Amino acid sequence: MRAADIDGFYTDASTLDAEAHLILDYRIECRGDPRVAAAHLCSEQSTAQWRRVDVDEDYRPRFAAKVLDLEVETELSGTSYPLLPPVDGPVSVCRVRIAHPHANFGPRLPNLLSAILGEGPFFAPDVPLIKLLDITFSDSFLAAFEGPQFGLDGLRERWQIHDRPFFFGVIKPNIGLDPEPFTELGYQGWLGGLDIAKDDEMLADPDWSPIARRSALLGAARQRAEQATGEHKVYLANITDEVDRLLPLHDLVVANGANAVMVNALPVGLSAVRMLRKQAQVPLVAHFPLIAASSRLPYFGVHTRVWTKLQRLAGFDVVIMPGFGPRMMTAEDEVLEGIAACVEPMGPIKPCLPVPGGSDSAVTLPGVHEHVGNADFGFVPGRGVFSHPMGPRGGAASLRQAWEAIAAGVPLAEHAAQHPELAAAIGTFG
Amino acid sequence: MRAADIDGFYTDASTLDAEAHLILDYRIECRGDPRVAAAHLCSEQSTAQWRRVDVDEDYRPRFAAKVLDLEVETELSGTSYPLLPPVDGPVSVCRVRIAHPHANFGPRLPNLLSAILGEGPFFAPDVPLIKLLDITFSDSFLAAFEGPQFGLDGLRERWQIHDRPFFFGVIKPNIGLDPEPFTELGYQGWLGGLDIAKDDEMLADPDWSPIARRSALLGAARQRAEQATGEHKVYLANITDEVDRLLPLHDLVVANGANAVMVNALPVGLSAVRMLRKQAQVPLVAHFPLIAASSRLPYFGVHTRVWTKLQRLAGFDVVIMPGFGPRMMTAEDEVLEGIAACVEPMGPIKPCLPVPGGSDSAVTLPGVHEHVGNADFGFVPGRGVFSHPMGPRGGAASLRQAWEAIAAGVPLAEHAAQHPELAAAIGTFG
Repeated sequence: MRAADIDGFYTDASTLDAEAHLILDYRIECRGDPRVAAAHLCSEQSTAQWRRVDVDEDYRPRFAAKVLDLEVETELSGTSYPLLPPVDGPVSVCRVRIAHPHANFGPRLPNLLSAILGEGPFFAPDVPLIKLLDITFSDSFLAAFEGPQFGLDGLRERWQIHDRPFFFGVIKPNIGLDPEPFTELGYQGWLGGLDIAKDDEMLADPDWSPIARRSALLGAARQRAEQATGEHKVYLANITDEVDRLLPLHDLVVANGANAVMVNALPVGLSAVRMLRKQAQVPLVAHFPLIAASSRLPYFGVHTRVWTKLQRLAGFDVVIMPGFGPRMMTAEDEVLEGIAACVEPMGPIKPCLPVPGGSDSAVTLPGVHEHVGNADFGFVPGRGVFSHPMGPRGGAASLRQAWEAIAAGVPLAEHAAQHPELAAAIGTFG
Repeated sequence: MRAADIDGFYTDASTLDAEAHLILDYRIECRGDPRVAAAHLCSEQSTAQWRRVDVDEDYRPRFAAKVLDLEVETELSGTSYPLLPPVDGPVSVCRVRIAHPHANFGPRLPNLLSAILGEGPFFAPDVPLIKLLDITFSDSFLAAFEGPQFGLDGLRERWQIHDRPFFFGVIKPNIGLDPEPFTELGYQGWLGGLDIAKDDEMLADPDWSPIARRSALLGAARQRAEQATGEHKVYLANITDEVDRLLPLHDLVVANGANAVMVNALPVGLSAVRMLRKQAQVPLVAHFPLIAASSRLPYFGVHTRVWTKLQRLAGFDVVIMPGFGPRMMTAEDEVLEGIAACVEPMGPIKPCLPVPGGSDSAVTLPGVHEHVGNADFGFVPGRGVFSHPMGPRGGAASLRQAWEAIAAGVPLAEHAAQHPELAAAIGTFG
């Protein structure tokens, strides 16, 4: 890029038509002049070539992504992560805020992803390392999206769950287990106090547990559990499958009594989820396979907060995400940022329910509640319910007892003295 | 995991039912005993819990992923990339080959991705860094997939392009340019010798260049170019859009005269591509946005070879990928591995056409041809055609002239003496 061309990729917020742009926050490690590198980053994600040969024209004023803010944080003698082919010499670590005109692609998730995470950002000259840290949408862009159909408030109303977390349980074992005993595990979990018994994200529609049969059994068991407990109960069926089966499977499992469906968001694709959302009769729940492959490293890829916002935009009512504690390899701040991304204001798009998960049990509930700071979350043990020594009914009961203790401001150990399921959870998982 | 449980996640190739398994090659950096870490990696991606409480059963023999081979390459004092939260202490760098029973999920791309790149591999205890290096399918798994409809040989036959590379050109400028002048650029490129004039991967269906109008203009221009040149010409329309618009857009652009369609594979989702493949009347071309976010780092994420194999499996006839040279930040070996992944034997799945691209022009053609080692590739300049000082007709002509030189074993510079377009390309891009 010639020196005279660089200014065309800079603007300031005071003159920007904010409604016409998305705001993108990237962290980059760049070679050479950061001002040039940031201009490349804008050019490559928008008007890489902004005029025809021998024509006096310039598409940048209306169509170029433009730098709003560029801050050099530090200089390093080389990239934070060694690369192949090697990148030699010093780099500048920068935060760059870019305004991208969304009319370049319109309110379409695949085209949005192609612009903000495509060849532009990841192959901009002299920008070998880049991470998209955040995205902020304008209301005019959001207006074209459906977002969650029910959202956090809608789920509370629909399932009559108030002033406490939503108690999910991942039925285990699942890979290999026949539908009949699998259903019995879920049923016992509901009786013990689970709100939502769910399929594992890897259990979909295999020959040895066809979803038609599994959902029929669990749909019927759910209704029995509702009669037995007088509470709303949810069977969350995993309909993750090829895209052309999403709608038929949704219809099938709902007819069979499933009253929420789970989709592994990135493996299926966010746009297919948006398609499903337009037809869905029940809440949509996201699971997180594939996300870590682009999000784990602090200085490369995509921040999980961005993936969470995009899942909410695609229409998920619930977003399951890696939660607190060392098991899920996610920094506490990042978990909190993901939770915030579910519930913070987002124009006309409803809040969704965050479910930070990972090796939970009654024992971890106080800590998760304390981290979140309120009861607007889902709690999703697997083993904590289904490997409980008193079985899933005892495991589920231990969750409710732990919540009673929290709500009463009583230590778990004290409450456990009168509650053997909680005592057993502490003994096993504590 | 208890010591006695580990053996259930190991097997050897001599006793394995090879047809029933996929083979996964991971590089991991793990803490503690590598044998335990590799068992966790298998457990988490398959039978994480393999028995019910108080039931004497074991789902591992049939359903567990199992280590076939584990090789400790070296020990490091810490992970290659610092992580948050920090991973303290020494790690072992290992290659681990795993056999995964594909009946756990069946021939479904989203479920395959969920198993091999999901919570299992990326959240296995004591495995903070992992990269999926390769995947090998058994014929029994592949038999359920459609793969490319035309494939490399079918494209040569359909478009009568023999004994030379396929010459693509990315029409530029594109972001902001009206369909009429955009079409004229493509038309001139065809006259000059392009086989395929293509939309940029960021140009889809915006208000300022509706794909209905653009494809009608280019479809008509393509037919005029065929009449003028006596050659087959291809307009490659980018139908990347929300999933529920893929089939309608395919039908629209084909009716308008587009004779190939491009889809940004990961932004749209591989499964949606498979859905499109079942209905498509024309060749499908993949573009690579989003892939680098999980593939650039040598020791984390997913190797591009895996993404290429999966794109071929989803049914793409052509896979555009980052090519040779420093501009595309991809090691030469990795480009060659991606090309091999397009054409190597893959059971009943046809070979597809590899298109290694990035800042190409007539000047880079000899190098790309030499690297590939044959003419079974696509060549996809943008500026090399559309910023050529003699315009796109001259730019396209310079590609054909460069190929004449290569085919005749003559240096470009020598051939340029009688070919002003090639001479101008050398002067501009050399």
